[in-house]
Amino acid sequence: MTEIIRSDCEALDRDDPLASFRDEFILPDGVVYLDGNSLGARPKAALARAHQLLDQEWGIDLIRSWNSAGWWDLPTSLGDKLAHLIGAGEGEVVVTDSTGINIFKVMSSALTLRPDRRVIVMEGSNFPTNNYTVQGLVEQLGGGYDIRFVEEAGLEAAITEDVAVVFLTQVHYKSGRKLDMAALTAKTQDVGAISIWDLCHSAGAFEVELNNCNVDFAVGCTYKYLNGGPGSPAFVFVAKRHQGVSSQPLTGWWGHEAPFAFERDYRPATDIRQMKTGTQPMLSLAVAEVGIDLMIGANMCEVRRKSLAMTELFIALFDQRCTGYDMDLVTPRDGSKRGSQVSLLHKDGYAIVQAMIARGVIGDFRAPDNMRFGFTPLYLSYSDVWDAVEHLVQIMESGEWQHEDYCRVEAVT
Amino acid sequence: MTEIIRSDCEALDRDDPLASFRDEFILPDGVVYLDGNSLGARPKAALARAHQLLDQEWGIDLIRSWNSAGWWDLPTSLGDKLAHLIGAGEGEVVVTDSTGINIFKVMSSALTLRPDRRVIVMEGSNFPTNNYTVQGLVEQLGGGYDIRFVEEAGLEAAITEDVAVVFLTQVHYKSGRKLDMAALTAKTQDVGAISIWDLCHSAGAFEVELNNCNVDFAVGCTYKYLNGGPGSPAFVFVAKRHQGVSSQPLTGWWGHEAPFAFERDYRPATDIRQMKTGTQPMLSLAVAEVGIDLMIGANMCEVRRKSLAMTELFIALFDQRCTGYDMDLVTPRDGSKRGSQVSLLHKDGYAIVQAMIARGVIGDFRAPDNMRFGFTPLYLSYSDVWDAVEHLVQIMESGEWQHEDYCRVEAVT
Repeated sequence: MTEIIRSDCEALDRDDPLASFRDEFILPDGVVYLDGNSLGARPKAALARAHQLLDQEWGIDLIRSWNSAGWWDLPTSLGDKLAHLIGAGEGEVVVTDSTGINIFKVMSSALTLRPDRRVIVMEGSNFPTNNYTVQGLVEQLGGGYDIRFVEEAGLEAAITEDVAVVFLTQVHYKSGRKLDMAALTAKTQDVGAISIWDLCHSAGAFEVELNNCNVDFAVGCTYKYLNGGPGSPAFVFVAKRHQGVSSQPLTGWWGHEAPFAFERDYRPATDIRQMKTGTQPMLSLAVAEVGIDLMIGANMCEVRRKSLAMTELFIALFDQRCTGYDMDLVTPRDGSKRGSQVSLLHKDGYAIVQAMIARGVIGDFRAPDNMRFGFTPLYLSYSDVWDAVEHLVQIMESGEWQHEDYCRVEAVT
Repeated sequence: MTEIIRSDCEALDRDDPLASFRDEFILPDGVVYLDGNSLGARPKAALARAHQLLDQEWGIDLIRSWNSAGWWDLPTSLGDKLAHLIGAGEGEVVVTDSTGINIFKVMSSALTLRPDRRVIVMEGSNFPTNNYTVQGLVEQLGGGYDIRFVEEAGLEAAITEDVAVVFLTQVHYKSGRKLDMAALTAKTQDVGAISIWDLCHSAGAFEVELNNCNVDFAVGCTYKYLNGGPGSPAFVFVAKRHQGVSSQPLTGWWGHEAPFAFERDYRPATDIRQMKTGTQPMLSLAVAEVGIDLMIGANMCEVRRKSLAMTELFIALFDQRCTGYDMDLVTPRDGSKRGSQVSLLHKDGYAIVQAMIARGVIGDFRAPDNMRFGFTPLYLSYSDVWDAVEHLVQIMESGEWQHEDYCRVEAVT
């Protein structure tokens, strides 16, 4: 295999059809930001949108903005936009609350659709909030449910005819491994179970095909690949066929059929609005729209193509330059089984990530040994990938990661 | 009784110790904003805080801001600030999620503390989300619970020894009537029940005394009298004695004892952190802090004094000038039974409110006949109160409220 050199990466950058998107984002000088899988970078236009909301909508128009600025409708109007990115239809998505809260809603809904079954299949190595939320729900329902935790290799065998719900994360938060949504949803529905997908590491990373895969419910966040801002509200998808049939128990007034009738008793909306609960944080929601709009403006086929090319480049450079450091690649080499991140394992991964951050290469770390590097096509270049590996090599060669400044403390990322 | 004239109001303004706070807020010229009980006005400093978050924390520091900018700790650090305004202690309040979601948490917690009881007492005329949320929870728990809806006059009699939880709103969203928290909490606990208070129309309006009243749980919002911004996150209070004993079912990773250990199974934090769920909307939360800081800077005794003086003035002017318009005062004349709003009933209240808004006097309307006027001491003057009544009188005298522009449409406020 020919050795890759930096000028090869520069050549790729010159031919990159997405290169102009870099100018739509603020990024500090000298930083290679490989953490868009945790918190996406800031779109420049976010500031103008915040100004508009603060100065005009809140400051001047005040309460009237609930109507005139579209605040009230934003969860559904933004949901309709986001639907384009995840293969959903109009009226199937709402942007609201957090991912965990939305998991509670869809799992509750799904369980009511299979009242005679008591098994939930999930990956135990999931992002913890998914497990925790389902555990909390099951406990609240008085037990009687069995959460069947399995890992990828055991999934097919675990999806049996006693299963009520299969709840999977399409791209694993640690390894970056992408599951086959079509096959697993089909398998789930073959046994009569309901499928829920977590798209936190999918939405905005590549085209998701919820309806083509006949998915029942989905959730995801907007602050990773959708660049919505720190903690921006999450989204929830309910296939049309389940709307008005299933219902969720967080029955706030925004989910009422006629919220401004101020009726004493709850009467659920029979469409996607039933997934709404209460008043949403408008500033965070409005700014999230900027990131979603940017992503809608990108060609998602090109986004996926570049994402795969960048992760392949990173892996090739890892193979070429990072042998001998006791570092293992945990992300699949098969692109079809990969999201938009690459993870390397090293027993001192925490310190290595800190040393990289000190050099301006920002990835993150997940205990106990996982170094995560996210590759976001809209604001990263192939040269950035080269530079990241160059810094990693220098850090490993020099041993600077062993500096006491990089010793382990609790990481919040 | 001596007739009040505008110069009396101007004299009150000259002696107002809170007058300087008006300069801390943006308000459009010519507007008398009487809707701070729905959406508080915008603190000027909100813009600088948004800039700081967007430009430096998100834009430059990126993922590191979860630690360096205190994002991760903001729900609890802001909760500790807010505690001062509601008579709570350190470690008893967290700012997170929405009021409805927080109601679900505290009602779940409260019910687990009284597993042998099955009655919940609430006012049926409550703000609907409170009823709806409890109805949703009860349905999810498989029924078996009886929600005993009563109105104020029937409250004492309804709080009997079979009651598990009494969930009351301190200030009624329509009438502005304030309940006696001390007496009703004592009555609740006398029968062995748990007390939950909704402080949406209390926090920032007057000093709340949660611990002096021995309240068990409370919730409230930050976007009314706390001026946190549209839909800014809500708060939840859990008395120390219930922390680690009760638990709530929305068990996201932020409520885990060791969130960054990424354990498979949920292990609840044994303090107020257990009320946290998942990632919060940081932009909305950070801007909410500006409003809370402003309120902490005000003397709450002065705030209450001015609030009562303004509502009394409004009522006196109503008595003096608004007879003969088929308009009724529904808010108690006894100041100790009043929050910081005055509500008038008129069968054409919707049109009258629209006509007032057209003249720059912004109140709001709640079906079927309730005109609400909120009086916020930090940015309103006594002259504003005079001017509001003057416009109301002119509108009623001229009949301009009958103009077709003010016909009824669905109001979102």
